[in-house]
Amino acid sequence: MTLSSLRTLTATVLFALPACAAAQDLPPTPAASPWGPADEIGTLNMMTAESRRAVMARVDAGRVYDLGVEYFVGMPSWHLLGDPRYQYWLTHTPRGTAVDDPAGVGAAQNALVAYTGDAVSMYTHTGTHIDALNHFGLNGAIWNGFRADDHLGDRGWRKGGVEEFPPIVARGVLIDVATLKGVAVLPDSYRISRADLEAALAAQRVALEPGDVVLIRGGRMTRWPDDAGYVQDQPGLSLEAARWLAEDRRAMVIGGDNLSLEHFPVEPGGSWVPVHTYLLAQRGVPIVEVADLEALARDRVYEFAFVAASLKFRGASAAPFRPIAMPLLRSSGEAVR
Amino acid sequence: MTLSSLRTLTATVLFALPACAAAQDLPPTPAASPWGPADEIGTLNMMTAESRRAVMARVDAGRVYDLGVEYFVGMPSWHLLGDPRYQYWLTHTPRGTAVDDPAGVGAAQNALVAYTGDAVSMYTHTGTHIDALNHFGLNGAIWNGFRADDHLGDRGWRKGGVEEFPPIVARGVLIDVATLKGVAVLPDSYRISRADLEAALAAQRVALEPGDVVLIRGGRMTRWPDDAGYVQDQPGLSLEAARWLAEDRRAMVIGGDNLSLEHFPVEPGGSWVPVHTYLLAQRGVPIVEVADLEALARDRVYEFAFVAASLKFRGASAAPFRPIAMPLLRSSGEAVR
Amino acid sequence: MTLSSLRTLTATVLFALPACAAAQDLPPTPAASPWGPADEIGTLNMMTAESRRAVMARVDAGRVYDLGVEYFVGMPSWHLLGDPRYQYWLTHTPRGTAVDDPAGVGAAQNALVAYTGDAVSMYTHTGTHIDALNHFGLNGAIWNGFRADDHLGDRGWRKGGVEEFPPIVARGVLIDVATLKGVAVLPDSYRISRADLEAALAAQRVALEPGDVVLIRGGRMTRWPDDAGYVQDQPGLSLEAARWLAEDRRAMVIGGDNLSLEHFPVEPGGSWVPVHTYLLAQRGVPIVEVADLEALARDRVYEFAFVAASLKFRGASAAPFRPIAMPLLRSSGEAVR
Amino acid sequence: MTLSSLRTLTATVLFALPACAAAQDLPPTPAASPWGPADEIGTLNMMTAESRRAVMARVDAGRVYDLGVEYFVGMPSWHLLGDPRYQYWLTHTPRGTAVDDPAGVGAAQNALVAYTGDAVSMYTHTGTHIDALNHFGLNGAIWNGFRADDHLGDRGWRKGGVEEFPPIVARGVLIDVATLKGVAVLPDSYRISRADLEAALAAQRVALEPGDVVLIRGGRMTRWPDDAGYVQDQPGLSLEAARWLAEDRRAMVIGGDNLSLEHFPVEPGGSWVPVHTYLLAQRGVPIVEVADLEALARDRVYEFAFVAASLKFRGASAAPFRPIAMPLLRSSGEAVR
Repeated sequence: MTLSSLRTLTATVLFALPACAAAQDLPPTPAASPWGPADEIGTLNMMTAESRRAVMARVDAGRVYDLGVEYFVGMPSWHLLGDPRYQYWLTHTPRGTAVDDPAGVGAAQNALVAYTGDAVSMYTHTGTHIDALNHFGLNGAIWNGFRADDHLGDRGWRKGGVEEFPPIVARGVLIDVATLKGVAVLPDSYRISRADLEAALAAQRVALEPGDVVLIRGGRMTRWPDDAGYVQDQPGLSLEAARWLAEDRRAMVIGGDNLSLEHFPVEPGGSWVPVHTYLLAQRGVPIVEVADLEALARDRVYEFAFVAASLKFRGASAAPFRPIAMPLLRSSGEAVR
Repeated sequence: MTLSSLRTLTATVLFALPACAAAQDLPPTPAASPWGPADEIGTLNMMTAESRRAVMARVDAGRVYDLGVEYFVGMPSWHLLGDPRYQYWLTHTPRGTAVDDPAGVGAAQNALVAYTGDAVSMYTHTGTHIDALNHFGLNGAIWNGFRADDHLGDRGWRKGGVEEFPPIVARGVLIDVATLKGVAVLPDSYRISRADLEAALAAQRVALEPGDVVLIRGGRMTRWPDDAGYVQDQPGLSLEAARWLAEDRRAMVIGGDNLSLEHFPVEPGGSWVPVHTYLLAQRGVPIVEVADLEALARDRVYEFAFVAASLKFRGASAAPFRPIAMPLLRSSGEAVR
Repeated sequence: MTLSSLRTLTATVLFALPACAAAQDLPPTPAASPWGPADEIGTLNMMTAESRRAVMARVDAGRVYDLGVEYFVGMPSWHLLGDPRYQYWLTHTPRGTAVDDPAGVGAAQNALVAYTGDAVSMYTHTGTHIDALNHFGLNGAIWNGFRADDHLGDRGWRKGGVEEFPPIVARGVLIDVATLKGVAVLPDSYRISRADLEAALAAQRVALEPGDVVLIRGGRMTRWPDDAGYVQDQPGLSLEAARWLAEDRRAMVIGGDNLSLEHFPVEPGGSWVPVHTYLLAQRGVPIVEVADLEALARDRVYEFAFVAASLKFRGASAAPFRPIAMPLLRSSGEAVR
Repeated sequence: MTLSSLRTLTATVLFALPACAAAQDLPPTPAASPWGPADEIGTLNMMTAESRRAVMARVDAGRVYDLGVEYFVGMPSWHLLGDPRYQYWLTHTPRGTAVDDPAGVGAAQNALVAYTGDAVSMYTHTGTHIDALNHFGLNGAIWNGFRADDHLGDRGWRKGGVEEFPPIVARGVLIDVATLKGVAVLPDSYRISRADLEAALAAQRVALEPGDVVLIRGGRMTRWPDDAGYVQDQPGLSLEAARWLAEDRRAMVIGGDNLSLEHFPVEPGGSWVPVHTYLLAQRGVPIVEVADLEALARDRVYEFAFVAASLKFRGASAAPFRPIAMPLLRSSGEAVR
């Protein structure tokens, strides 16, 4: 999807379809935090010493699932609006060091020591990552009413930056919608409904609990690393389903295996990224994207300890991380399936 | 320290002091891995389902110590040889979006939705990070004999890249040398000896076990974020002490709160980064640097579960991560102090 | 064209077609410079005080043609092999400065002074640029036999870098092949022959002279800035025509309005970039790419003073510049048409 | 000078010294352009076909002075407020290509063809460059009243960007203040007065004319490339002298051999960059910085054709270029000394 086709799609959708019912009672402003006027982390406040202890008491560390993707030049990423793709380059190599002698140690040392150094650059929403609450706001302000004009400097937000997020140690639940539907990957632009989530949970015999990290699998990672197949017209969470997770089920974090959690094109009637503005600005729920849920799904691991610590990029709207999932034992000492 | 002063220092040290005894029996080549010719992760092979279970069975997740530092423009980093400093920039802002309308959604949407996006660039060894085994080799090859001419492409190493490192779940041990010495921070260029480590462990009443993640505190983080005070002439681990940890104590990972683990200037007689070439190329021991150990030291938490998953930058010589430490309970159910 | 399709195309072409006749007597090594063993600039040695005076004595500075393109996020560039696209970002903005107060001057000053700063990154071959002689070599060495193993450090080449190129003040000649053929743009992959060049020059009534900057118009700039339309399967100069220009006509610099001067796919039998390796490594002729020749063509300005000074990126394989063309007066004092 | 020392210096100066007399009648707003409400280039409108012809009619192209500096990792640049330093990296190397085979051409081709590619990143005000009129404004607007809130997007300014600047072909005049004072370089923070300029011009026997590119030499380039010696506490143009050049002498462009044209610390009473806000926002005069004037001074070439074309970075506040100077002949046909 080029930028111009995105423009067309967005415009078409916004004016051609009936308004989204789930958006109708949402005000066009961010919410004040129930955790007080200084709060910058939203629902991550739900995590406590007790909640962490409860989940880790049941953990089976024998199996560790890696939910993070590799970073490499050419990897799929969000670039339709001009954001930089992942880049990697070498800053020191054994042969280059021999030619340059950058440390002034001489030819013998440079022949002896083989030095490799490197650097990267990327959009902060590249690869497996978590969105901070400042990523999307409403009417010039983010979660808890922090205004861009007051708090957005040239080195990022002074409120709501991703560096405020604590390490996450919580119960995680996989909702495997693709398997429910019997497909490898949901169709392009598929809109995951509340009913889909409830049916998948029933099939998996798992119930959500307040404070969960809920990870929704649409199978999109089976397209990885095909940029066009992964990035454009993605299936994803509907606003209705997001509301059910956030309001009824009190999820602490919501994530997915696609690029943007929500489906594109979106339902009209609200914002052009309705699930983002709702979760981030109105519910204070951090979003996880580009999570690799394939191994969990294959092994039918639906309940697990989710342990992840995002890089503390000061002021940033997101940060990469590499979450791990460790299955939970039932009281009997057997892993939950 | 400018590049030219580094040259002077290095040259002075390399020719003015007696040779380092600990280096005398080290060959000028990388070692073959005991885990076989395909091995790229060295001592991380020591981690097993059982080792992870053992440590997690004793964990107290009520307290989570964050060992990672923040990333911000101007943060201290290794730049004496020209490597790029950390940079952060905004790619989308609410007001910029209103002017540009990048998604073609129109003025009303851009007034409604406050979009923030951003990007970063950095040397891979910036902030809290882990060195891959390809970071330093000997005579044109890295750990296990992989040669640069065969495996180093323009997008990094095809062997020994940091993306091969699994998530680490292991017992961690803090060795607080600064507290042993009764100082906030060890003197510049201080060389931490094996005797220092043994004395600190005795004072802490903790014994090392094979497979530990050993983190050595010299107090350097009390200088953070003063670039000159943190980067130059750092105290650190001596080769002798590194050998004791790797060979006698069979540490799986060795880290510190300073920039480069080892002290600078170094002892002459071996390589210009003798602890790096020894641990990485000859023992296959990954190195952790710029770890924030202040809170662990303050609370006298010397034994803990170390849980960390470095970003999988393909082919890279290092990757940032944000390790967490959770105290271990003794069999009695009380945290180890 | 994705990387994989490039691979297919290249492989197909290299093995399916008859060998290129023009390549048959070219050795697989770079040439020694006739300007001596220290030479790093090749044919730019043809420029002298006299040659510059001769052209500037005839210049009509009343009209200045701008041959450089704009740089903007999303502009076409060479990225099929992973090179970074052009990026631009703001480092200081009036509102950001008010929030950050980076200079510590206080709110009143930040309200008074509206500060804007910005940064860019790009592949050095982005936009209108000149290739240095180190860009393509043969068998591990570049023009004049400088070997990569001896002279290529981690900060670029210590020989043959683009910073060695002097400012160019020379006679320029436009060869408008598209107009000769009566098309807006030559067909994809069209191979411009020596006969095409001779016919166009005859139609234009202009003769080449030794030391000329020869700019060949295929009309590709009419596709600009459509990335796919501009980058892939470009028409361009054949090796045969390049040889005629370099050997018979003794051109000093050869350029075009397309991305890579030569056509793609290339003729098999030599290197995979035969015009580049020939001109740069075997003739020492710098190459100009992505030149905007539309206005010159429209006004039928075929002979002009070419004045350009490429940025001196130390060690680099190319540098951007913005050449200008000023028509030449005939002895009568009228501009050449 | 660290950021904190800059803060101290600025604060000290702003409150401790008497107000700057030259600033007293300057309003705190940008000026409307005499060239109309659409004007974005200010005094560059002074350049005409006639003005260019007049200067080029007298040019001696036999000598070409290169006023641009080299770009290299570690070069001095403005980074006190966090802007990125110049970076350069390789994206393709002969040996890396052999390992990666990025184009899929196979081992024989990769052995035959030695490919080098590279990339750069930098603050736009790095090296020899020209400031656009959007670089500094007043009260939220730039030259000609364009407001940031209306015209500053996330990819730069939509008005007043450096891409609007035409190539410059004009009479240039060197004012060598360092030689006038009999020093290699003016003392740190020296404030160049109108009297200094007039005395130097008298000594040089050159008179300014409307439309000149005026280049002021304080000798700072003799400190190059010592970062600290070049960047901090620079001598430079006073506001009084800038006003004389812009208002009385009607200079078209004003430049210098130092980093920021004006002296630091500045005189209090106006903006914290008074010469910048005055010239850019109130007079529409582009500023040239980091010009290498050493060879011109050594050869006492005080009058010359200044030919330069800055890169067209869309929306940017500056762009690098490499101006050339060619001496002017007097009517007699001899070069002006």
